[in-house]
Amino acid sequence: MSNQAVNTNDLLNNITNVKGIKCWGAHTGIKSMRRDLAIIFSEVPANASATFTVNDVIAEPVKLTKKHISDNRAQAIVVNSGNANACTGEQGYKGAEAMAKTTAEGVGIDKELVVVASTGLIGEAFPTEGIVAGIKENIPKLSNSPKAGSFAANAILTTDTFAKEGHLSFNLDGKEVNIAGIAKGSGMIHPNMATMLSFIVTDAAIDKSLLDETVKKAVEKSFNMITVDGDTSTNDMVVVLANGMAENEVINSKDDPNFKVFEEHLSQMMIHLAKLIISDAEGASKFIEYKVAKAESYQTAKKLARSVSDSLLVKTAMFGRDPNWGRIIMAAGNAGVHFDSFHVDLYIGNEKELVQILDKGVPVDFNRNLMKKMLRESHIRVHLNLNEGEAEATAWGSDITTDYVMFNSVYTT
Amino acid sequence: MSNQAVNTNDLLNNITNVKGIKCWGAHTGIKSMRRDLAIIFSEVPANASATFTVNDVIAEPVKLTKKHISDNRAQAIVVNSGNANACTGEQGYKGAEAMAKTTAEGVGIDKELVVVASTGLIGEAFPTEGIVAGIKENIPKLSNSPKAGSFAANAILTTDTFAKEGHLSFNLDGKEVNIAGIAKGSGMIHPNMATMLSFIVTDAAIDKSLLDETVKKAVEKSFNMITVDGDTSTNDMVVVLANGMAENEVINSKDDPNFKVFEEHLSQMMIHLAKLIISDAEGASKFIEYKVAKAESYQTAKKLARSVSDSLLVKTAMFGRDPNWGRIIMAAGNAGVHFDSFHVDLYIGNEKELVQILDKGVPVDFNRNLMKKMLRESHIRVHLNLNEGEAEATAWGSDITTDYVMFNSVYTT
Repeated sequence: MSNQAVNTNDLLNNITNVKGIKCWGAHTGIKSMRRDLAIIFSEVPANASATFTVNDVIAEPVKLTKKHISDNRAQAIVVNSGNANACTGEQGYKGAEAMAKTTAEGVGIDKELVVVASTGLIGEAFPTEGIVAGIKENIPKLSNSPKAGSFAANAILTTDTFAKEGHLSFNLDGKEVNIAGIAKGSGMIHPNMATMLSFIVTDAAIDKSLLDETVKKAVEKSFNMITVDGDTSTNDMVVVLANGMAENEVINSKDDPNFKVFEEHLSQMMIHLAKLIISDAEGASKFIEYKVAKAESYQTAKKLARSVSDSLLVKTAMFGRDPNWGRIIMAAGNAGVHFDSFHVDLYIGNEKELVQILDKGVPVDFNRNLMKKMLRESHIRVHLNLNEGEAEATAWGSDITTDYVMFNSVYTT
Repeated sequence: MSNQAVNTNDLLNNITNVKGIKCWGAHTGIKSMRRDLAIIFSEVPANASATFTVNDVIAEPVKLTKKHISDNRAQAIVVNSGNANACTGEQGYKGAEAMAKTTAEGVGIDKELVVVASTGLIGEAFPTEGIVAGIKENIPKLSNSPKAGSFAANAILTTDTFAKEGHLSFNLDGKEVNIAGIAKGSGMIHPNMATMLSFIVTDAAIDKSLLDETVKKAVEKSFNMITVDGDTSTNDMVVVLANGMAENEVINSKDDPNFKVFEEHLSQMMIHLAKLIISDAEGASKFIEYKVAKAESYQTAKKLARSVSDSLLVKTAMFGRDPNWGRIIMAAGNAGVHFDSFHVDLYIGNEKELVQILDKGVPVDFNRNLMKKMLRESHIRVHLNLNEGEAEATAWGSDITTDYVMFNSVYTT
């Protein structure tokens, strides 16, 4: 994949760069001070694809959205923050329905074209009335101004310390195609509100089943490869709308070279947003990249990268600035896939440099002082070469700190 | 299961109570000061069963013992602590073979009747010579004195703060039958040495395939239901020897009422030892029992109990004395089995009393001051009634504290 930078540090680089996209973010009163309602609207119906939480306890808006998006078509997204609408039963489901209906009526579309999402506290009664009034009040404000994009990105946050946005553009058939997205998730301090949400919009023209396939693949490589505390929330959702307004020739086949170009850029956007979520993991002191290379299959590489990045013992070692290869190999051994520890080369380092720790499973005599110094940095890389094939996968994670335990234990229900 | 107490707080209640069992524990020099070699010997060959680590990286003695015990027969167990003999390759495997051979020659049995286990640092060259000399020197000391039992229990420890022993006896056909065991595992401070080992001996006479079946079932309910940090070591091993010297009529059938009696007492011994391991989890402040009842199947109950007890967010909530039902339901939802959160009754309390938190998924207005007071205690119970069937399972765990992170991060490779 190309390493083209995603534009993000600029108010202008947000979802309103995508043709036909209008949005808004407002304060309706669920949260005391901050924006708590986001609406995203495409001028024309879009092809759509979504992935949802794997938690067996599913929030009410997730149930509704699964139904609405089953035909892979959508035109509007309505999201509230502050209340997760989870463990709320029928009252909550009706609230989610009311959000869809009010939005649909406001913009003049079928309610089945509306995606509904919520994030916030679990098990609180859902404040349907206030949210419905808020939607009605704010639909007339839908706009493609940069300010509107920023308001929407901010309105989906809970404990996040910054809005997570990205935009990139590229050419297909001489037409400018845009992909832009917003995300939320900080995951560490208030995990009841640690829902991971991401909404990505593009003006690319692509067949709906190809879109669905590529979205699922890109989620697999990005949002599914970040780990903070291993728990999946009741509300997790990633939604992609592709409205075709870039007017490129519709991508109808996997053999179309444009399919690969689109897929790479979509993955890049998702990885960008996923890494922003990890960067915002409060109670963490480090951002860590775990790359597993030369594996016999992608599945093996992926499972090993996830198992090492999930390991509590590896996370504490990273916090303690300790290149503890025994813990890394043990965590890899717990991945449930086969590899030979006597084939493994292990490297640990910072963004610029990697130091070899194991050579075919045998400890190398490395410079411990240099290593300690590197591990003081906030961006760490851990690379495992299995020397058993050609596949590779990367996961991203944070360390675990005494602050993490403190924050999570003082949080009160 | 009966709740008969297992005798443990008494020097006399150890594995030497089992007829025909001799043992010893000695210092050979792998560790600087403490005992590091244990030998257990049965005067007659015994039926045997074992379960091993599920980690894909397997220590050398585990490889050897798997081979030796494949016929479900064994007569001696030799264990060293201080060096895990893991990631040591051929040199290590030869070391494990030398331990078996030296022990076999010393007691005059086939080397295939010897079980070999190790626990300690991973990836250090194995000190075969010293251990072989130690075995030779200590075999003449094998004894059935209570002191010998205590020495053996102490010699298998690494970071454990106390020896873990238990003994119980009961009647079969008017004969006194004994089951006794030792275990090690503390799991939190130095997780490279967090191997879980247990050696259980009984003088019961039982068919070897029935023994194997009941051992695997009992391990499932005990050692597999404790969780400290979620990682499985490269060296985990539970071994049971049944030498028949109680002279009860051989248990040959599952329909024999004695089978059930034996099975219950074996489970009870394993649960006793498993709970001792959790009690010794340093860097933890609480012992927590997670019971899932009224589930539609044992598998469902087991997976839910494990998922909740494994959850980092539940562990930090317990440390923070917070009856955070949202985290508990979310962790249950991550178990990968189906249940309806609107059927769940949740109770949290101390050893004596339980307070209802959820009634069919809906929060109950409980006494928060009483709850905070209860959660200050060191023994906590969390009970979930799913109200979907009759099956139940119990898991045991510890909380996670700021000390845990501190201890684990300052430990140096």
